[in-house]
Amino acid sequence: MERSNGRATNELRPVKISRQFTNIPEGSVLIEIGQTRVLCTASVEEKVPPFQKGSGKGWVTAEYAMIPRATQTRTQREASKGKLTGRTMEIQRLIGRALRSVVDLKKLGERTIWLDCDVLQADGGTRTAAITGAYVAMIDAIQFLMEKKLVRTNPVQDTLAAVSVGKVRGNVVLDLEYEEDSQAEVDMNVVMTGAGKFVEIQGTAEDIPFDRTDLDRFLELAEQGIRSLMEVQKSSLERTS
Amino acid sequence: MERSNGRATNELRPVKISRQFTNIPEGSVLIEIGQTRVLCTASVEEKVPPFQKGSGKGWVTAEYAMIPRATQTRTQREASKGKLTGRTMEIQRLIGRALRSVVDLKKLGERTIWLDCDVLQADGGTRTAAITGAYVAMIDAIQFLMEKKLVRTNPVQDTLAAVSVGKVRGNVVLDLEYEEDSQAEVDMNVVMTGAGKFVEIQGTAEDIPFDRTDLDRFLELAEQGIRSLMEVQKSSLERTS
Amino acid sequence: MERSNGRATNELRPVKISRQFTNIPEGSVLIEIGQTRVLCTASVEEKVPPFQKGSGKGWVTAEYAMIPRATQTRTQREASKGKLTGRTMEIQRLIGRALRSVVDLKKLGERTIWLDCDVLQADGGTRTAAITGAYVAMIDAIQFLMEKKLVRTNPVQDTLAAVSVGKVRGNVVLDLEYEEDSQAEVDMNVVMTGAGKFVEIQGTAEDIPFDRTDLDRFLELAEQGIRSLMEVQKSSLERTS
Amino acid sequence: MERSNGRATNELRPVKISRQFTNIPEGSVLIEIGQTRVLCTASVEEKVPPFQKGSGKGWVTAEYAMIPRATQTRTQREASKGKLTGRTMEIQRLIGRALRSVVDLKKLGERTIWLDCDVLQADGGTRTAAITGAYVAMIDAIQFLMEKKLVRTNPVQDTLAAVSVGKVRGNVVLDLEYEEDSQAEVDMNVVMTGAGKFVEIQGTAEDIPFDRTDLDRFLELAEQGIRSLMEVQKSSLERTS
Amino acid sequence: MERSNGRATNELRPVKISRQFTNIPEGSVLIEIGQTRVLCTASVEEKVPPFQKGSGKGWVTAEYAMIPRATQTRTQREASKGKLTGRTMEIQRLIGRALRSVVDLKKLGERTIWLDCDVLQADGGTRTAAITGAYVAMIDAIQFLMEKKLVRTNPVQDTLAAVSVGKVRGNVVLDLEYEEDSQAEVDMNVVMTGAGKFVEIQGTAEDIPFDRTDLDRFLELAEQGIRSLMEVQKSSLERTS
Amino acid sequence: MERSNGRATNELRPVKISRQFTNIPEGSVLIEIGQTRVLCTASVEEKVPPFQKGSGKGWVTAEYAMIPRATQTRTQREASKGKLTGRTMEIQRLIGRALRSVVDLKKLGERTIWLDCDVLQADGGTRTAAITGAYVAMIDAIQFLMEKKLVRTNPVQDTLAAVSVGKVRGNVVLDLEYEEDSQAEVDMNVVMTGAGKFVEIQGTAEDIPFDRTDLDRFLELAEQGIRSLMEVQKSSLERTS
Repeated sequence: MERSNGRATNELRPVKISRQFTNIPEGSVLIEIGQTRVLCTASVEEKVPPFQKGSGKGWVTAEYAMIPRATQTRTQREASKGKLTGRTMEIQRLIGRALRSVVDLKKLGERTIWLDCDVLQADGGTRTAAITGAYVAMIDAIQFLMEKKLVRTNPVQDTLAAVSVGKVRGNVVLDLEYEEDSQAEVDMNVVMTGAGKFVEIQGTAEDIPFDRTDLDRFLELAEQGIRSLMEVQKSSLERTS
Repeated sequence: MERSNGRATNELRPVKISRQFTNIPEGSVLIEIGQTRVLCTASVEEKVPPFQKGSGKGWVTAEYAMIPRATQTRTQREASKGKLTGRTMEIQRLIGRALRSVVDLKKLGERTIWLDCDVLQADGGTRTAAITGAYVAMIDAIQFLMEKKLVRTNPVQDTLAAVSVGKVRGNVVLDLEYEEDSQAEVDMNVVMTGAGKFVEIQGTAEDIPFDRTDLDRFLELAEQGIRSLMEVQKSSLERTS
Repeated sequence: MERSNGRATNELRPVKISRQFTNIPEGSVLIEIGQTRVLCTASVEEKVPPFQKGSGKGWVTAEYAMIPRATQTRTQREASKGKLTGRTMEIQRLIGRALRSVVDLKKLGERTIWLDCDVLQADGGTRTAAITGAYVAMIDAIQFLMEKKLVRTNPVQDTLAAVSVGKVRGNVVLDLEYEEDSQAEVDMNVVMTGAGKFVEIQGTAEDIPFDRTDLDRFLELAEQGIRSLMEVQKSSLERTS
Repeated sequence: MERSNGRATNELRPVKISRQFTNIPEGSVLIEIGQTRVLCTASVEEKVPPFQKGSGKGWVTAEYAMIPRATQTRTQREASKGKLTGRTMEIQRLIGRALRSVVDLKKLGERTIWLDCDVLQADGGTRTAAITGAYVAMIDAIQFLMEKKLVRTNPVQDTLAAVSVGKVRGNVVLDLEYEEDSQAEVDMNVVMTGAGKFVEIQGTAEDIPFDRTDLDRFLELAEQGIRSLMEVQKSSLERTS
Repeated sequence: MERSNGRATNELRPVKISRQFTNIPEGSVLIEIGQTRVLCTASVEEKVPPFQKGSGKGWVTAEYAMIPRATQTRTQREASKGKLTGRTMEIQRLIGRALRSVVDLKKLGERTIWLDCDVLQADGGTRTAAITGAYVAMIDAIQFLMEKKLVRTNPVQDTLAAVSVGKVRGNVVLDLEYEEDSQAEVDMNVVMTGAGKFVEIQGTAEDIPFDRTDLDRFLELAEQGIRSLMEVQKSSLERTS
Repeated sequence: MERSNGRATNELRPVKISRQFTNIPEGSVLIEIGQTRVLCTASVEEKVPPFQKGSGKGWVTAEYAMIPRATQTRTQREASKGKLTGRTMEIQRLIGRALRSVVDLKKLGERTIWLDCDVLQADGGTRTAAITGAYVAMIDAIQFLMEKKLVRTNPVQDTLAAVSVGKVRGNVVLDLEYEEDSQAEVDMNVVMTGAGKFVEIQGTAEDIPFDRTDLDRFLELAEQGIRSLMEVQKSSLERTS
């Protein structure tokens, strides 16, 4: 199977993570994976949602949006339509859940970290890019809280990244571009911790159901990809910001 | 681990599928899995959504709702709130996608089958019960279309059922009740065909990430449960309605 | 005039009231009047709406909905449309008002009884069936409150039921089916107490205005029908639940 | 029972109907009943709603609103809230239904008459004042259509007016003011034709159910009141506009 | 350039301001400028919006609406559409801002004056008529507050009125009617104080950009028009209400 | 008066215009004015809004949004609130109107150019930055249309840019930052063509009304600033993209 730019089936697209992309937020990360670009900002708010009030525990939540021309054809703004699509809701719930899985909310204290993931350009894999980028933005926001002595013990329990895998014209491939994704038989998003454990597996047979052998290959590729993404996260976080 | 009614960890709750629960729809199925009860109706509409027009292909779609007191505490109606929650959207997208995976839309012709899944009582596993019940309602609707000679060749390519598995206080268990689900470390929904292939795997670590060993055990239990559910579907469909 | 199943003009359709149709709510009644079926649940909430706070008085309110395929042609969900229709609002205001008329809100204390009337199948007379069924569900909820000693004196002041009457092709008839209702010249809903007094009279000339003689005949038939419905309510409530 | 301004229990408040209150609409009527003032405009639109297309028949429909300070305390605009209240929907459905009952839609032809009833000041009885005033505005609009030869035969079959009656502190009274209405035991709106037939009867026991004797007295008073209102309508329509 | 009724380019249409047009509000003004008629009511509410709470300062705010048939063609109600148009929002923000500019909110105290501007008939210049009329309604409401001793020192710092100017077929004209407005090359709204200072200038070249010479002429005409409007406001306020 | 970074009262902040900031849209411009950054994309759609259909004329329109953390405190998304604020509507109407003023819609032909202005960081002057940047994005989109021979004659009639001016603590200043804007006595936005004519003047006295002398000074400063902005636009457009 031939992929664009001669990419191998088990190869990620070029990944770039830029911290402090804007100056106002506590964390502001532009993640670029091939042509996909997502701006992830982390904002600290000194209150929690009603269901968490008085619990002594914090909250981590995410919102996701695309600018109208992130896509080949202009997409109508959800603000103009007056409601979020099911796809958006699904994605933002996934991002929030994934990030919460590596945070000890008790150590965070009664405050919220908002992760806003705004897709500036979409070429497949925006939700996994958002998770991978938002993780870095969240680390910066928590660093800010620790420097301000608002948080005493680091609430982050492990590293976290996500990637898509799938089956395209019979081939199991890593990190699908939009073109591949739109013709995939199976599409799977995997979120993993640094300890190599699963936080989320979402696999959908768009067309042809898959079996255990496929699944094993999907997870193997995903783990490889996630290991590479974690390298990029790490070296980005080591740079003095 | 002790489960209610002395259930084993790999045991389904009692399952009952009643066809023609109401008389008006082309398919009308009440599925009861323990205390969970979902009314699944199938309605044929002789038109397709805009994106499918002129394609010669049909459409299968689902909507999901709970009556306010399906739950222990009354839940506000989404119609009164004026919008669907993210959870509802996620579930109805899943049900529709799962059912489409076993239907040849070309053979269905340019018409839509609506599957309305209304939860009358909720005790965990409503989305997988909805898929399992809606499959039977859909079969009845397609039977209706074939008897009317509106559809010539059966578009259904395989049987389909779904079940939840998860990890509760360290135990891998099948078919979680609400009580178990609310304290589960991992929650996974699996949709499978009669050929034993996966249509959808959605696993979420609510609290503690899981590894490959867990995953293998989850999928094994899920397959067992789905086999049993397919028996109940089959004998229900054999009864003269 | 010939009616379906050889029914006389002054005859009700077969009526069946099943209590504890689901197990979770404080009251859960399935009322079947011919092919019309409405699930009425009663839920106790230990608070009142803002306008009643601090008054020492409780509240009784109702919501009404139809599942999409309760009707011959599938009706779009109000939750998907994002708003309630005028018809739904009118009906749920009527149900709530009717039930409040036989409850001493002071004796109920500062709590709310929600009556959710979900139409599973619609063949005319759903709003009057909802009132008649919700009355029984409310009695069960109040019984629950008295057994828990949350309410000391029974706040229910009289029994209550409702029926439709109308004029179809010149004939004054009791309890209209959908087919009759859609061609009626006059359509009237009557809500009455056990003492034979009116709580609500809503008569509409869809086509041909009516005179006092018609009105007298309408009310006579309605009273007969309501007496019969109250018999069914009574024997249902006498059964050990 | 003492009423404001020494009014007898069977006496209407002063009624004034001003045609051509504004100049743009085909009909524009300000109706004043005591302190209640409603501006009723009639607008002709040369199309019908989808359900009436191709039927050769027209449509008559109404919308109702109050300016925020029509009431003692400012009421939030429904446009700002983003939705109509149940009360508004109920009222505008009533007005439209009432007016359609005296119009032969076939003779009107495939066009719509919109009746916009905007309450400038509210002191009880706004819905019946709206019906009474909108009738006159509709007559002007139909006159306009006949002069333009767009309508050949007068589609209006009878005159129409409406009034409220009720029981206040045990007294049966005609034409309730806001003060009386808010403490009424029974509140009834009656819409009648010139031939003395009923188009709509809506009676609600807010507090104490009523019996047949009450009902007879209500309808007697209503007929008297409606006769007087029709006199005012008639002399207003006789004035050269 | 010929204008309707032989009006000169620098001439206002006939202006009439009627106070106490309705009886309930603290201020109620009907302003008529030619065929444009706006009902402006002022309502006092003894609370302020959240952002002003505890500041010791009050608030002045406005809402604007048109009845559907204020215009030549019936306009759909914003309440029925479920949202305000951008035009409405723009106008009501302008009216509120303009009036606040002449009120010392500290002297007003923690209360809100709502100015509801409901257009009964629209023939151009509704937003400037609304400002001019609402000013008078606000004065009446403040007079009411001072008589009740709720406000001790008059918070009104200057008089205020507004007018439109523009360029129509090459001519600079004052107070555009709808017909002129719809073909204007430039449209400008000017709000001024009695001291002859600007509170708001909003000039838009609909078609042909304008230069400084035009601008000077616009502002000169606007000042003339506003002086005349202030005369009418003044004599209206001198009449015993 | 001291300004941040020692800026003179008549000095713009550093301006940078980057074309092709993203790769998908026909025009994609990042404009940075000090800390304010707006991404302006231009999208061509081969259809026009209903009111323009069949006219042979095209349309130019704009939408404006801020990412939640463009501001010091996180702002809730309008998509989550389910509606646009008045401020957003006002701004996007202004941007669209301004750009249309320099485009001959007839020469554009029946197609729409959408200008999406997404604020990535907000430090005052976002609406004028959006106009200035969107102009460049529009030029690129029109260039694309001319290269594709979809448009034959250049429909752009003049250059266009916008700037804010105002009065801060008594000083007339150019290009206000957020800090200055929030305490300004007068705030004015000016949109001008290359020919030095006004397209839009919107001046608001937030606190202290202004006189003709102020106005003259505002317009003089604005013209200076706009001249400089046009230099930056020009050199950006000269670079090979």
